[in-house]
Amino acid sequence: MDAQTLQAAFADVAADYVKRLDLRVTAVRPGEIDLALPVAAELVHGGGVLCGQAIMAAVDTAMVLAMIAELGEFRPMTTVQLQTSFLRPIPRDVAEVALTARVLRRGKSLAFGEISVRTPDGKLAAQATTTYALL
Amino acid sequence: MDAQTLQAAFADVAADYVKRLDLRVTAVRPGEIDLALPVAAELVHGGGVLCGQAIMAAVDTAMVLAMIAELGEFRPMTTVQLQTSFLRPIPRDVAEVALTARVLRRGKSLAFGEISVRTPDGKLAAQATTTYALL
Amino acid sequence: MDAQTLQAAFADVAADYVKRLDLRVTAVRPGEIDLALPVAAELVHGGGVLCGQAIMAAVDTAMVLAMIAELGEFRPMTTVQLQTSFLRPIPRDVAEVALTARVLRRGKSLAFGEISVRTPDGKLAAQATTTYALL
Amino acid sequence: MDAQTLQAAFADVAADYVKRLDLRVTAVRPGEIDLALPVAAELVHGGGVLCGQAIMAAVDTAMVLAMIAELGEFRPMTTVQLQTSFLRPIPRDVAEVALTARVLRRGKSLAFGEISVRTPDGKLAAQATTTYALL
Repeated sequence: MDAQTLQAAFADVAADYVKRLDLRVTAVRPGEIDLALPVAAELVHGGGVLCGQAIMAAVDTAMVLAMIAELGEFRPMTTVQLQTSFLRPIPRDVAEVALTARVLRRGKSLAFGEISVRTPDGKLAAQATTTYALL
Repeated sequence: MDAQTLQAAFADVAADYVKRLDLRVTAVRPGEIDLALPVAAELVHGGGVLCGQAIMAAVDTAMVLAMIAELGEFRPMTTVQLQTSFLRPIPRDVAEVALTARVLRRGKSLAFGEISVRTPDGKLAAQATTTYALL
Repeated sequence: MDAQTLQAAFADVAADYVKRLDLRVTAVRPGEIDLALPVAAELVHGGGVLCGQAIMAAVDTAMVLAMIAELGEFRPMTTVQLQTSFLRPIPRDVAEVALTARVLRRGKSLAFGEISVRTPDGKLAAQATTTYALL
Repeated sequence: MDAQTLQAAFADVAADYVKRLDLRVTAVRPGEIDLALPVAAELVHGGGVLCGQAIMAAVDTAMVLAMIAELGEFRPMTTVQLQTSFLRPIPRDVAEVALTARVLRRGKSLAFGEISVRTPDGKLAAQATTTYALL
C-alpha cells in the first residue's frame, strides 16, 4: 500500500472534524506509517502552543492508518484505550510535526500500537500507546 | 464561579479547533464541572459513531475547565498525560453527551483528575484519567 | 458471593508472590469489592513510603476480584492494560490502605474497571483504570 | 556507571518485596538500562503464566534504574503514573524475560520513560510508559 492509497482510505472513513487537521501520509511501511500534522493557527491555544487536543486527534488517526497499512485494507475497528504523554510544548512557529505510528502486535481481536510525535529538530514532543479492537 | 464565567474563560484561551466542538458548560461545583458535547454530523466517522478524537478533545477541555473551577481563575497549565478508555460507541442519533470532570488532587505543581462521558441514558461511554502540571 | 468465598477463589489462582501481600477482602458488592492492603515493612522502600510496585500489584488483584464478583465465579481472563496514577505517598506508619475496585463495563470479550486506593483518613492515594480481556 | 554499581544502588533503596524478584542489571547505557527478570515459580499464577503484578513491579523498577543511570546517582523521585500494556502471555517455561527502560525526556521536575519486556525469542510481551517526578 502506498501513501496515496492510504490517504484516500483515510478520506473515506474519517470524520470531517478530523479531516480539518490536514494530516498528510508521508510514508508507509509494513505495520508502520509516517504522518505530518501542520501546526495551523486554529490548532494553537492561548498559551501559543499546539493544543493537546489536536495532538491526540492526530495520534489516534495515525494508529488507524498504521492498522490499515498492517491489514492491507480498512476493516472496522475501534479504539479501546489511548494513553498520551506530552513531553514538550510545540511552539506555534513550528511549521509541522511528524508522527510515526507502529503496530506493536496484531492479535485476533486486539491490536497494540505506539505513536510518537516529533518536532522538525527530531525531539520527541509526545508519545502514546494504544489498544484497538478489531470488530 | 458560575457556568457563564467559566464558559467565557474557556473562550479566551481555547484553540479555534476546540471551540468548533461547541462545548457548553452546564454546571460548576468546587473542583468539578459538567460539560455537554453535541454530537454534530462533522464529529461522526464512517462507522456512524462519534469519533474518538472529539471525545478526547472534549475530555481534555473538561479537565482544563475543572482546574479553572478549582483554582478560581485561569492559570497557565499543561497536560502531562491523558489516558482515555472507550467503553461503548456513541451512535450518531444521540443528540449530545454529558461530561463530568473532577479534580482528584491539586498539589503544588501537579494536579490529577478524572473525566467521565455519558450518553443521555446515563451509561458510561468513556472514562479518562489525567495529570496536569501547573506552570 | 461473600468475602470469604471470594478470598478463597483468590487463593486458588493467585501467584505466591501476590499472596505475600496479605490482601484481605473486606466487602463484596455486585461488580465491586473492597480490599485491605497492610503496609508491611517489606513493602516500604528506602524513601520510607509504601512502594508503587505493591500498590500496582494490589490494584491489579483488586480488579481480578471485582471481576470474579461480577461474573459470580472465576473465569480465565487477562489484564490488557493498566494505568495507575500515584497522587500521594503512603507513609510507613499507615497500618493499611483500602482499595475499592469497580467493574465499569463488562462486554462480551472486554471489561473495564477502575480502582482507588485510600489511606485510613479517606484521602485518595492512587487511582487506576484498566481493561481486561475475557478468554 | 556500570551494571554492578547500579545493581548496588538499587539494593540500597528497593523494598524487600521488590528485591524478591531477583532482578539483574545486564547493561547500562546513558539514560537506558537492561534488566533480566527470572520467571520464578512464585511469580506464576494459576493460569500458568508470569503474573502481571511481577511484570509491573519489574517495569517500575527498570525505570528507576534508568533514571539513576541518567542522573549518574540516585536522587529522590516518585512515580507519577505508569501505564502498562500486556501484549502476550509469558509462559512459565520461559527462563527469564528481558526489560529495557529508556528515559525519553528528563525535565527539571518531570521525567518520561518507556519500558519494554521481551521474551528470549525477541517478542514484545509488555510495553509501558511512565512519568516520574524528581523531588
